[in-house]
Amino acid sequence: MTQEERGVMEGGDGKQCVVRLEPSDRTVSVPAGALLEEAISLAGLSVPLPCGGQGRCGRCAVQVRDGSVRRRSALRLSEDEIARGFALACQTLIESDVTVWIPPHEESVLRHEAGDRAEKAAPEVVLCEHPGLPWVARYQVTLEPPSMGDNTPDLERLQRELARQHGLRDVRPTLTTLAKLPSVLREGEWTVTATVEQGDWLAPDGPYRLLDVLPGKADTRVLGLAVDIGTTGVVTYLGDLRTGELVAHASAFNSQIARGEDVISRIIYARQPDHGLELQERVLTTINTLVDEMLARENISPEEITLATVAGNTTMIHLFLGLNPQNIRLEPYISAAGRFPPVSAGRLGLHMHPDGLVDCLPVVGAYVGGDITAGVLRTGMHEEEPVTLFIDVGTNGEMVLGNADWLITCACSAGPAFEGAGATSGTRAITGAIEQVWIDQKSLEPTWTTIGDARPIGICGSGMISLLGEMMVTGVIDKSGRLAGYGSSERMRRTEEGPEYVVAWAAEADNEGKDIVLTETDIQNLLRAKAAIFAGAAVLCESVGLAITDVERVLIGGAFGKHIDVEKGIQIGLLPDMPWDRFTYLGNTSIQGAYLALTCRDSRAQADELATKMTYLELSADNRFMDAFTSALFLPHTDESLFPSVARTLAGAVQAAGGVPQAAGSGDD
Amino acid sequence: MTQEERGVMEGGDGKQCVVRLEPSDRTVSVPAGALLEEAISLAGLSVPLPCGGQGRCGRCAVQVRDGSVRRRSALRLSEDEIARGFALACQTLIESDVTVWIPPHEESVLRHEAGDRAEKAAPEVVLCEHPGLPWVARYQVTLEPPSMGDNTPDLERLQRELARQHGLRDVRPTLTTLAKLPSVLREGEWTVTATVEQGDWLAPDGPYRLLDVLPGKADTRVLGLAVDIGTTGVVTYLGDLRTGELVAHASAFNSQIARGEDVISRIIYARQPDHGLELQERVLTTINTLVDEMLARENISPEEITLATVAGNTTMIHLFLGLNPQNIRLEPYISAAGRFPPVSAGRLGLHMHPDGLVDCLPVVGAYVGGDITAGVLRTGMHEEEPVTLFIDVGTNGEMVLGNADWLITCACSAGPAFEGAGATSGTRAITGAIEQVWIDQKSLEPTWTTIGDARPIGICGSGMISLLGEMMVTGVIDKSGRLAGYGSSERMRRTEEGPEYVVAWAAEADNEGKDIVLTETDIQNLLRAKAAIFAGAAVLCESVGLAITDVERVLIGGAFGKHIDVEKGIQIGLLPDMPWDRFTYLGNTSIQGAYLALTCRDSRAQADELATKMTYLELSADNRFMDAFTSALFLPHTDESLFPSVARTLAGAVQAAGGVPQAAGSGDD
Repeated sequence: MTQEERGVMEGGDGKQCVVRLEPSDRTVSVPAGALLEEAISLAGLSVPLPCGGQGRCGRCAVQVRDGSVRRRSALRLSEDEIARGFALACQTLIESDVTVWIPPHEESVLRHEAGDRAEKAAPEVVLCEHPGLPWVARYQVTLEPPSMGDNTPDLERLQRELARQHGLRDVRPTLTTLAKLPSVLREGEWTVTATVEQGDWLAPDGPYRLLDVLPGKADTRVLGLAVDIGTTGVVTYLGDLRTGELVAHASAFNSQIARGEDVISRIIYARQPDHGLELQERVLTTINTLVDEMLARENISPEEITLATVAGNTTMIHLFLGLNPQNIRLEPYISAAGRFPPVSAGRLGLHMHPDGLVDCLPVVGAYVGGDITAGVLRTGMHEEEPVTLFIDVGTNGEMVLGNADWLITCACSAGPAFEGAGATSGTRAITGAIEQVWIDQKSLEPTWTTIGDARPIGICGSGMISLLGEMMVTGVIDKSGRLAGYGSSERMRRTEEGPEYVVAWAAEADNEGKDIVLTETDIQNLLRAKAAIFAGAAVLCESVGLAITDVERVLIGGAFGKHIDVEKGIQIGLLPDMPWDRFTYLGNTSIQGAYLALTCRDSRAQADELATKMTYLELSADNRFMDAFTSALFLPHTDESLFPSVARTLAGAVQAAGGVPQAAGSGDD
Repeated sequence: MTQEERGVMEGGDGKQCVVRLEPSDRTVSVPAGALLEEAISLAGLSVPLPCGGQGRCGRCAVQVRDGSVRRRSALRLSEDEIARGFALACQTLIESDVTVWIPPHEESVLRHEAGDRAEKAAPEVVLCEHPGLPWVARYQVTLEPPSMGDNTPDLERLQRELARQHGLRDVRPTLTTLAKLPSVLREGEWTVTATVEQGDWLAPDGPYRLLDVLPGKADTRVLGLAVDIGTTGVVTYLGDLRTGELVAHASAFNSQIARGEDVISRIIYARQPDHGLELQERVLTTINTLVDEMLARENISPEEITLATVAGNTTMIHLFLGLNPQNIRLEPYISAAGRFPPVSAGRLGLHMHPDGLVDCLPVVGAYVGGDITAGVLRTGMHEEEPVTLFIDVGTNGEMVLGNADWLITCACSAGPAFEGAGATSGTRAITGAIEQVWIDQKSLEPTWTTIGDARPIGICGSGMISLLGEMMVTGVIDKSGRLAGYGSSERMRRTEEGPEYVVAWAAEADNEGKDIVLTETDIQNLLRAKAAIFAGAAVLCESVGLAITDVERVLIGGAFGKHIDVEKGIQIGLLPDMPWDRFTYLGNTSIQGAYLALTCRDSRAQADELATKMTYLELSADNRFMDAFTSALFLPHTDESLFPSVARTLAGAVQAAGGVPQAAGSGDD
C-alpha cells in the first residue's frame, strides 16, 4: 500500500473525520465511529496492544488534543489523565475531526537481544537410537548420456539410474526440479546429486519426491529445521537429517508479543482478518530472522534446509499456518485440526527450500498443543512404567500425567512470568540472565549468579523462582507476596509504580542504565503463574484418583534457564513437596521433541499416536480448578500441610534469624 | 515492470545507445550490439516473429531512419528496401544512437473469431464403458456439532464422518480447505459438501485430498477440463467427471502463433528465458480465454473445475509447463520428461480451482507427444487386431502404425496448412468455413458448402483438400501445383504476390471485404504438407516390412472440419490409394483422448502404458524419408502407379472435357 492508498478509509453512509496524528504530523480520513487505533493503523503508525486491544492493559493510551471522541472504556486511566484528554486508542471512537498525540513507545516491551548475546553453548540434543531412513537424503548418480540409439527423456533417464544405483523407485519430481533438470544434467556432464524426500510422515512409504538436483558431485549433507513457537519465545535448531548432529541454534522473543502477551489476547486481536495475517507475518519474521542468523553464521544457503518440524501450542500453530483461531477461545474450544497437512515452505514464506515440507506436530486439543506432544516424546514417559507428571512451564502451563498405559493432560493459563516476559526486569534464559539468587537473612543483601557469568541483564525464569523462594524465606515478602518491612534495607523501596526489591544496581548491571528489580506487581504475576500450575497438577491427579504424592517422578520442561532449583520451586509452592530426587529438569522439551521428530521416523510416528492417545481434561469447565487455584495463591499454599518440608525450613529460618519473620506461617516443628 | 524500469538495458562494459522508436515516440537505452528486436521489446512494443526470430520470414522488417546498424542478414528484403533503410529487427545489431520506424502490423496473421462465431453444435464425445471412480467427487455429509463432551477438532470430525458415511479414509485437506473449514462447518450448521480428489493418475489409490468444502448441501456435480494444445489451435472441453456429459466446449488459435508458426520456430524464439515465459503466458491466456468463455456461457465458477487433462505435442507441453524446450531441437532430440508430474492449477495460473491438479498426458518422444498418446487412446487401435494406420494431421504431422501387439510411430513436419493457418484465406473449422468445393470442368466456376451454411469466411482444412483435388482434376493447376491457363476464367488471376484462384468474391463472403483465394504459395504449402504426411506413412510401413496397402484400416485425426473427403484426399496424394471404406475420419482425436483420460481411470492408465509401448522412429535421421518426401511433392505423386484410381479419374476427366488437361499425367486406362 502506498501512503495515499492507506490514507482514506471509506465508511458506510456516515460522515468522514480527518484525524491528525502528532508528532509525526500524518493525516488520515476515517468514517465517524472508527476507533482511534484503526486511524493510527491506517496511517501506518502503531500503538502497543499487549492485551490484544481489549482495553485491559492501558498501554495504548494516546492524548486527544482537539476534537470529539467517545470512550467506551477508560480502564487504567487516572481521572487526571482523562481530564488531560488521554484515551485508550483501542476503546475510543472518533466523533469529529480530531488531533491526537501518540506518546513515544518502544515497539515491544521486550529487550531485543543482539546477535552476539544469544547463548553460545550448544544445547544438548536428544537423539533416538533407531532413526531409520532420513526424511530427506542426497544421492550422487552418474548417467549414460542420451544418444540417437537411446533417446529416453531426461527425467526417466535419471529415474532409471536412481532405481538401479540406489534402489529408489518412482521418484516424482517437483515442477521446479523438472524445469532445472535438463540444464543441470548437461552442466554436470551427466553426473548429478539428487535431493530426495523419502516419503513424509503421513505417507512414510512414499511417493518419493525429487526435491532438487545439483550438477556434479555435491555435498550429500541435508539439513532440517526444528522450530518451537512459544507464545513468548521462539527457538530454532538446525540439524543434519542423517546423523542428527546439531549444526546451529538460535532463539528470540516471538514478535507477536506486541499484539498480546497470552494466547487469548492474540486470538482476540486476530478477530480482524488482517490482524490474523499480521500475526502470521510477525511469527514468520521472527523465525526467518533466526534462520537467516543461523545460515549466515554457518555459511549455508536456505535451499539446503529441506524439511521443517514445528512444535507450538494450538493457537501458535493456527496463527503460523494462517488458520482462524477464534474457535479455540469460544466454548466448546475446538481446534481446526489435530493433525495438520504438510505445507510447502514456499507457500508459507519460510526461509528454506521452497518445495521442502513444513510439518506441524499434532495437537491434542485447543489448549494442549504440539509443544506438549513434542514434550512427551522427549520425556519418553509414554514408553515407561513409572507414573510420571510432566509439567511444561510456558505462558500457557500444560501438564501430562501417566505412563506407557495411559496419559491424561490439561492446560492452565500461567502467563509469561516464568519465561522472562511481563516482568519489569524479566529476560529470557540468555547470557547475563540472573539464574540463581541468595539473600542474606540479616542484611537482606542479595548475591546472584548469571548465565555465562556475564554482567546481569535481567532475571530469567529460574532466577525468578530462586529469588521468590529467598524473599519468602528471608521475610522480604509475606505469605501473600507483599513486600514487608521497609527501611530495613535500601533494597526495598516504594516507587510511583509501587513497592519493589532491587536485585542489582544499575551500576553493576548491563540493563540500559536501570536497576534490576522485582516489583510487587511482578510478584503477583509469579504467584498467579505458580498457583495455576500447582492447581492444574492437583486436579489432574485428583481426576485419576491419585494423591499428588503418588507421582513417582516429575519431569519439568520450560525455558527457565539452564537448571531449576527444585528446593526453591517447592518453597514457593510451584512444585509438589516430594523428595528432590524425583524431579528432573529437561529444559525446552518442545524444541527437543520437535528435533527428535525431525531426525527420526519412529519418533514422528509416535507423535501421532501420542496425540491421539492423550485424554484431554478441560479445566475451564472444572470448578475444582478454580478452587485449587485460589488456594495456591499463597506462599507456599493455603494448606501448609501439603508442604511439610517448607514449614520446617521456615521454622529453621525463624530460629536462625532469632525471631518470627513476617512471611513465615505458624510452622510448628 | 514500470515504463521507466523497462527503459534501460545494461550492457557489459560497452557503450549505451539511445533508440528512438517511431511512431510511438518511445525511447530506450541499450548496449551497443543489441538487436533491434531487443530494443523494441524493451520498450514494450513488438514486431511479428512468425519464424521465431530466425531471419527467415521477413515479417519483422523495420525502417532505420537515423543512426548506424549492422545487418547480419537481409533475407527477403529487396535492394530498394535496404537502400531505404529497412532491416530485419531480429537480425540487425545497433551500433549507435538510432531512430527506427516500426510499420503498422497486426498482432497476429490470424483471423480472430468472435465468440458468437465459434461452432455451436456440441461435438460428440467418446466415453468409456467402465469409467471407474471419478477422479474428483463431491459428498454431502452431516456432522454432530462439537460439545464439551466431544471436542474432536473440526478436521478430524469431518474425516470421521467421511469415513463412516462414505467409506473415504484418510482424506487429507489442502491448507486452503483447512483454513476455510471452521467457518464453513458453522455456516452450514454442520452440514457440508466436501470435494474430494480420489487419488491421482500416479497414485490412483490415494491419498485422497480434500480439495474444497462448501456450506450445506451443494451441487454434487464436479467438472473437469480437457485441453488440446495444438501448435496452431487450442480446443477445450468442459465435462462432468461423474457422468462424462460434455457441458461446454470452445476453441481458438494458439496465440503463440505470433511468435512462430511451427514448433521449431517457437523453440528458437524461446532461447531467451523471457521469451519462454512469454510463450507460456500466451498459451495460458489462450486457454484461460476459452475457459472464461465456457464458464460465462454456462454460469459456472472456476472453482467448480477441479481437474484438467492436457494433451499436446512435446514442445507445447514444455512451453505450457515452463520447461526449456531447447533439447527437443538439438540432436539427439530429448524431452525433459516422458511422464510429467502433477502440477496445481494455481501454480500455473489456469482459471480453475487453484488446488486442482493439471495432468499433462505422457509423451513418446521429442516429436511424438501427448496429443498422439491421446489420439491412440481415442482410436482404440491398441486393443484391437487389425493393422491400423492412425494419422494425426496437425502442424506437426504424426502417425502411428500397429495393433494390440505392437505400435510404431513417427512425426513429419507438415506445417499448419491443413489447420487453416499460414494460408491466405485459411480458417479453422468454424461456422462459415468452406469445407467442400466443386469446380465446373468448363467454366471453372466453383460452388462450395460452408460449415453451418453461413456466408463464407475462409477455407478450412477439409475445404483445402477438396479444393486442391478439384483444381487438379479440372486442370486449374498442373501436377506440380502451378496455376495453368490464365484468361480462361476471371477466377484465375495474377497479383503482386503471384498467381491465385478466387474461390469466393468479397461481395458474397464475410471476409473483411476481401476475396477468398488460394494462391500458388498456399498450394506449395499444401503440397509440402501432404507430401510429408504421405512420406511418413510410407516409411513407417517400410520400416516394419509392410506395403502401405497391407494396412487394414486408416484412422484420420485432425482439425480439418466436420468431415474429410477421402476421394479428394487420395486424389491429391495425401492418403494412400485404397478402398474408401478402409478410411475413417475421427475429428480431433487429441481432445477426445484427453477427455477420455479425464473421465475414465482405465483410459488414463492405458495412456501411460501406450506411451511406453510405442516404438519411436526418428525420421530426421532417416534418408528414406527425404526421398519419399521429394517423390510425393507432385499431384498425386511422382510414382503414379501408387495411385491407380486417381489415374483412372484423370483419364475420365480428360474424356469428359474432350481434351487433355494440362494437369493430367499420361494416365493409361
